[in-house]
Amino acid sequence: MKASQSFLATLKEAPADAEVVSHKLMVRAGLIRKLSAGIYNYLPLGLKSIRKVENIIREEMNRAGAIELLMPMIQPAELWQETGRWEKMGPELLRIKDRHERDFLIQPTSEEVVTDLARNEIKSYKQLPVNFYQIQTKFRDERRPRFGIMRGREFSMKDAYSFDRDVEGMKQSYQMMFDAYTRIFKRMGLKFRAVTADNGAIGGSGSQEFHVIADTGEDAIVYCPNSEYAANLEAAESASVLVERGDATEAMQKIATPNQTSCADVAQFLNVSLEKTVKSLLFAVDQAEGPAKLFMLLIRGDHELNEIKASKIPGMAESRFATEAEIVRACNAPAGYLGPVGLSAEVTVVADHTVANMADFVCGANEAGHHLTGVNWVRDLAEPLVMDLRNAMVGDPSPDGKGSLDICRGIEVGHVFQLGTRYSEAMGCTYLDQQGKSQPMVMGCYGIGVTRLLGAAIEQGNDERGIVWPISMAPFEVVICPMNYDKSDGVKTTADQLHEQLMAAGIDVVLDDRGERPGAMFADWELIGVPFRVVVGDRGLADGLVEFKGRTDAESQNIPLAQIKDKVIAEVQKAKELMA
Amino acid sequence: MKASQSFLATLKEAPADAEVVSHKLMVRAGLIRKLSAGIYNYLPLGLKSIRKVENIIREEMNRAGAIELLMPMIQPAELWQETGRWEKMGPELLRIKDRHERDFLIQPTSEEVVTDLARNEIKSYKQLPVNFYQIQTKFRDERRPRFGIMRGREFSMKDAYSFDRDVEGMKQSYQMMFDAYTRIFKRMGLKFRAVTADNGAIGGSGSQEFHVIADTGEDAIVYCPNSEYAANLEAAESASVLVERGDATEAMQKIATPNQTSCADVAQFLNVSLEKTVKSLLFAVDQAEGPAKLFMLLIRGDHELNEIKASKIPGMAESRFATEAEIVRACNAPAGYLGPVGLSAEVTVVADHTVANMADFVCGANEAGHHLTGVNWVRDLAEPLVMDLRNAMVGDPSPDGKGSLDICRGIEVGHVFQLGTRYSEAMGCTYLDQQGKSQPMVMGCYGIGVTRLLGAAIEQGNDERGIVWPISMAPFEVVICPMNYDKSDGVKTTADQLHEQLMAAGIDVVLDDRGERPGAMFADWELIGVPFRVVVGDRGLADGLVEFKGRTDAESQNIPLAQIKDKVIAEVQKAKELMA
Repeated sequence: MKASQSFLATLKEAPADAEVVSHKLMVRAGLIRKLSAGIYNYLPLGLKSIRKVENIIREEMNRAGAIELLMPMIQPAELWQETGRWEKMGPELLRIKDRHERDFLIQPTSEEVVTDLARNEIKSYKQLPVNFYQIQTKFRDERRPRFGIMRGREFSMKDAYSFDRDVEGMKQSYQMMFDAYTRIFKRMGLKFRAVTADNGAIGGSGSQEFHVIADTGEDAIVYCPNSEYAANLEAAESASVLVERGDATEAMQKIATPNQTSCADVAQFLNVSLEKTVKSLLFAVDQAEGPAKLFMLLIRGDHELNEIKASKIPGMAESRFATEAEIVRACNAPAGYLGPVGLSAEVTVVADHTVANMADFVCGANEAGHHLTGVNWVRDLAEPLVMDLRNAMVGDPSPDGKGSLDICRGIEVGHVFQLGTRYSEAMGCTYLDQQGKSQPMVMGCYGIGVTRLLGAAIEQGNDERGIVWPISMAPFEVVICPMNYDKSDGVKTTADQLHEQLMAAGIDVVLDDRGERPGAMFADWELIGVPFRVVVGDRGLADGLVEFKGRTDAESQNIPLAQIKDKVIAEVQKAKELMA
Repeated sequence: MKASQSFLATLKEAPADAEVVSHKLMVRAGLIRKLSAGIYNYLPLGLKSIRKVENIIREEMNRAGAIELLMPMIQPAELWQETGRWEKMGPELLRIKDRHERDFLIQPTSEEVVTDLARNEIKSYKQLPVNFYQIQTKFRDERRPRFGIMRGREFSMKDAYSFDRDVEGMKQSYQMMFDAYTRIFKRMGLKFRAVTADNGAIGGSGSQEFHVIADTGEDAIVYCPNSEYAANLEAAESASVLVERGDATEAMQKIATPNQTSCADVAQFLNVSLEKTVKSLLFAVDQAEGPAKLFMLLIRGDHELNEIKASKIPGMAESRFATEAEIVRACNAPAGYLGPVGLSAEVTVVADHTVANMADFVCGANEAGHHLTGVNWVRDLAEPLVMDLRNAMVGDPSPDGKGSLDICRGIEVGHVFQLGTRYSEAMGCTYLDQQGKSQPMVMGCYGIGVTRLLGAAIEQGNDERGIVWPISMAPFEVVICPMNYDKSDGVKTTADQLHEQLMAAGIDVVLDDRGERPGAMFADWELIGVPFRVVVGDRGLADGLVEFKGRTDAESQNIPLAQIKDKVIAEVQKAKELMA
């Protein structure tokens, strides 16, 4: 392909609203242009990268036995009312009315439509399992779209939905998708990690996210450097950092701690380690009648509460912080001096695993300006309910026992879910089993953010000159930069010939025929991030040489003209094999 | 590919709402399923055909130098307000509000967005010409969606937009697209015709439609069997059927014609040929002040008024039939007795070319129950304004002088437009010419209905057993039907081997591994319309033979097993070459 026919649209300046490097570089490299908040045009080079991503996904989905179909963008509200998502989803679901004032929506995902299709088309166990997927435009009306196409409103997603006879089958389908995703991201040449995730609003039992590792990622990932263990911070299990509960060695004492309301202040005031203190957090859950039900959650002073975990405490799915009035009612003390000792029985006390193993600890005394020291379970207060309530921290023991945890940042690009029967039961999506009995199909669903992958790859691969693509996603594999293309017949002939030869060999090559000056030409292609560059100039040709350079190489190499074709083919091949 | 992995979903019965054969067959063959009125799921086989169509379009668009990009489905109203289409378009434009109550729409086409892109990205004549295209989902909120995907609401369209320096360049771009379209529809193996079209609401100067010829088509196409001349009935030129005006031979007479109000009745009553009569039609155009302006249009009694042509009479762009009061005011007679003789000067008389050449004709007398005979121009009434006002008819002389016209029916699948500067001027889409002067870009736009093409191909190709695809669009090129696949090792081995061999040879082959009985198996594949079928059975194998049959062949042929691979490859090749 010739550059003059590729609509290059590089820019010197990034747009003012670009906060992250991928957004800046995608606009500057001429891959995307904003049409409206969170809505982008994909320029020719951006679309080329998207198509490469789509093709890898399609090949691996097909290889895993999934079947491609296409569901509509615009879907009737009725189906979404059957599952309750029409009412339950917030304004990120774009609801519309057609000319007859009937309710429709623009698909953010397609669980309802695919389940409707399955209940209409699949009657017998003989037709199961089946796994349908589509690569299709989605819309989510984000309140604050940002980061370019990473958190856009209109985007392209691959969504797949498996239907199985039973949970065992669903787990097999899930594993096949997990393996396919692993191949997909590997073939794309990305550093990624599969992490255990919380299920979020979609419902269901087990799920994992695939994250591209990048320092600029939105999500914190807790992982074990020595094993495959990795989890979203929200979902990472936190064991007790204390192997077992210590013995009581101190008497419990009430000590005046005027104006010391945080654990850090109290520890400093009492000259004890922060690890001796316990934070007491009071939550309320409103009831249909009467006062709200209260919960006191106990976390070690140096730990952080994980709200997702807290929401899994029985009865706490929808809680809020207690009001000042509720605090005084329960503890007879202002916030900052709360604690679990001598608490009214109407408050449920839940301690994190670590707190449950603490001895001689410090907590609020339920009296303004006072804390208790030397507090011990059983002796001073009843055994609490014990659960995992805190965020994992660097240095925590890995739940698989294979070392201690570290935390990195990632960008979620894929998600696999064990949905179970949440949708099939709501929508009557059943089949007849071998005994002729009606059974709900057991579902899984599997998403990959196609357009977001471009942004994630750039967050992972960039330098001060521009994008550093993995070869599988680059809009071109190789660029030929001829010097004085318009003036030197030798250069033109050589460059044209190499271009033809590489195209014939199946290399995705672009010839820069624009006649730009070398500096501007090189800068453009480094910004765009083409992995390999061949420079053809009169000076080199006089010695029978051309220049070859990888995008991240410090220096270019002089290669005999007679060998350059094979050199390029070999280098492209090698780069691709690294990802196979 | 194996049938068991292709999600076959054939049906015995067509849906009750299916009016046309393509709709019935697409549902019965398991290509589509309705989700909502005019909104369809594309099942795996339907999507396969769509992808084949898309690939042909893409290859030929690229060959013609067009550049693919992707514009958003959801577009902001502001751009459409710049061109006035936000206000002008009816409810088929689906308008939506986002969560911030901002106005958006779902694209029915993308003139505004691509023009916005061009004005932002293109500054100099050096960047022109350029032709952008996309293959993207569109939505038009049809009042009465019907005919399956032929007149659906959500559909896929290839839309291209060319930008040129001047009209001359635009005409070249237009011609390149015209040629590309010709190659595209030829490669698809369709009988089609390019016809001159009216420009419709999109505005601009010249345009042509590409129609797939089918008896069930919605549009009447006027064409000359001896030449390339073809036009939409709305746009076909109609010359006078009388070479020149005859001489007056009769005196004008007023004759009582009680209760004879139509030309046919009057002709019979007077015992003259219908071709001697003139129909007088009174139209009104409302004015800002005062009474409506009136026009009397004259058509020969056996001709039909063409309302599109009438709307091109100066001042008649927005007309309506005159009211009874207006008729009486102008003619002093009720409808049925109107005529151009002795008419008030406030009425503009416009005669069709044929009427202008008539002599001794019959028309209403502007007196209830009376007509005039022997009416002649100049002698009895002033020369009228003369224009082409009627629909073309079978037997009319072709405007290119190469014979007489015929009429067939077609389905519009493509449209090429010379847009000119309608959008670029409205949106300030300009470039600097070689003199540094700002000029509006001159645009063309070019559409192909991707999903509609499937329906059109089926309207053209079907029989009582199902679809008869052109090989380029069929979901599979060849099906292998093994008899007793599950029971006969010989059959299974042979069928599996042939399947592998044909796949390796690049043939799009499906192996029916479902274990269906022969009758049901054959019926499914004939319904789906796979062009070639190979039957492998124990009886034939005993003699070293398999059966080969083309979809429309009356009989199958016995082919030696050793030759079947080459036979299939040769037949597929031959079928494709017929379309190259």
